[in-house]
Amino acid sequence: MTRQPTIEFWYEFASTYSYLAATRIEAAAAAAGVCVRWRPFLLGPIFAAQGWTTSPFNLYPAKGRNMWRDLEREAARLGLPPVTRPDPFPQNSLSATRAALLGQDQDWLIPFSKAVYGACFAEGRSIAEPSAVIEILNGLGLDGTQTVKAAALEANKTRLRVAGEEARSRGIYGAPTFLTEDGELFWGNDRLEQALSWAVGDRPGGMR
Amino acid sequence: MTRQPTIEFWYEFASTYSYLAATRIEAAAAAAGVCVRWRPFLLGPIFAAQGWTTSPFNLYPAKGRNMWRDLEREAARLGLPPVTRPDPFPQNSLSATRAALLGQDQDWLIPFSKAVYGACFAEGRSIAEPSAVIEILNGLGLDGTQTVKAAALEANKTRLRVAGEEARSRGIYGAPTFLTEDGELFWGNDRLEQALSWAVGDRPGGMR
Repeated sequence: MTRQPTIEFWYEFASTYSYLAATRIEAAAAAAGVCVRWRPFLLGPIFAAQGWTTSPFNLYPAKGRNMWRDLEREAARLGLPPVTRPDPFPQNSLSATRAALLGQDQDWLIPFSKAVYGACFAEGRSIAEPSAVIEILNGLGLDGTQTVKAAALEANKTRLRVAGEEARSRGIYGAPTFLTEDGELFWGNDRLEQALSWAVGDRPGGMR
Repeated sequence: MTRQPTIEFWYEFASTYSYLAATRIEAAAAAAGVCVRWRPFLLGPIFAAQGWTTSPFNLYPAKGRNMWRDLEREAARLGLPPVTRPDPFPQNSLSATRAALLGQDQDWLIPFSKAVYGACFAEGRSIAEPSAVIEILNGLGLDGTQTVKAAALEANKTRLRVAGEEARSRGIYGAPTFLTEDGELFWGNDRLEQALSWAVGDRPGGMR
């Protein structure tokens, strides 16, 4: 039996198109015969390094208006519930991302991540406060209070910072980003199919 | 016989993804039963209004690096020639866009536009100087010198400015942009299929 290729799925909880990708990546990857490694990270520091103090969708209103409309259309196309807009947008994702980093090698990472996205973009709930993260963890049968406490320890904060540095050093500038084992970078929910094809060696025009 | 729906294709000659869209919109639209109205415009003033003095692909190097790689991949996937990077990027598209505006209702608009894109992104030629535009027009059997001269007259310059104001007032913030008759805006080459579906009334989840 041959080893399945793997792609990394770098996602940010406050990111609208990361949400779309998170809802469909498992089925798409399974169909393609590709494993997915979920890599939560914070986009804020990367945006800050390029001079942005908030989401580009807030900085550029025309772009932001169309993003919400496009998200609504794409969510409908994917059969997802109507999109709810988090208020404020973007949500502070620090607490949720710390928890996800703690769950990096745990079987609850994916259900937790999908629950955070559902709360944020389909249920209109806040994900910003530790209490919101605790509630989501509790809902998965975990000890939310204990997990959030452990996620706030120095070792885990370091892990989050290191993940951010890894993201930047590997060329990530937005989310979602898909990275193949040979370092090919695909940015955006619209490139999931191309990333999966690349991972299985099906490359356009014989590219390497 | 029923009237075919129409979409407007707003494109900028310096825009890499407008190039990809220009190579495939005719076949895709014909297959969908949609007419396309080609709408050349300048993105520069819109970028300038949001504080950008050059392409965001230059302002944000990580984003720019991946854009060129992605363009290479997407061009290969679409069966296009290897991408050549215009130097400088973005090319000054004023002269070519003026000519295209003059050709707005002429049968040479589309072949001219595709020839400009080919020169810019597949042949590695400059499109910035009037002489380059003249050469492209001549190559289509037109009187390039005369056309470029007419394109520089005040009436045509006004037409270009009015097109830019129309773009902005209709919510355009990037290129390519597809606009349906009911004003639905789709941004980016990746949304061509969705724009065509919308135009023929095939809308996700019963959206209106």
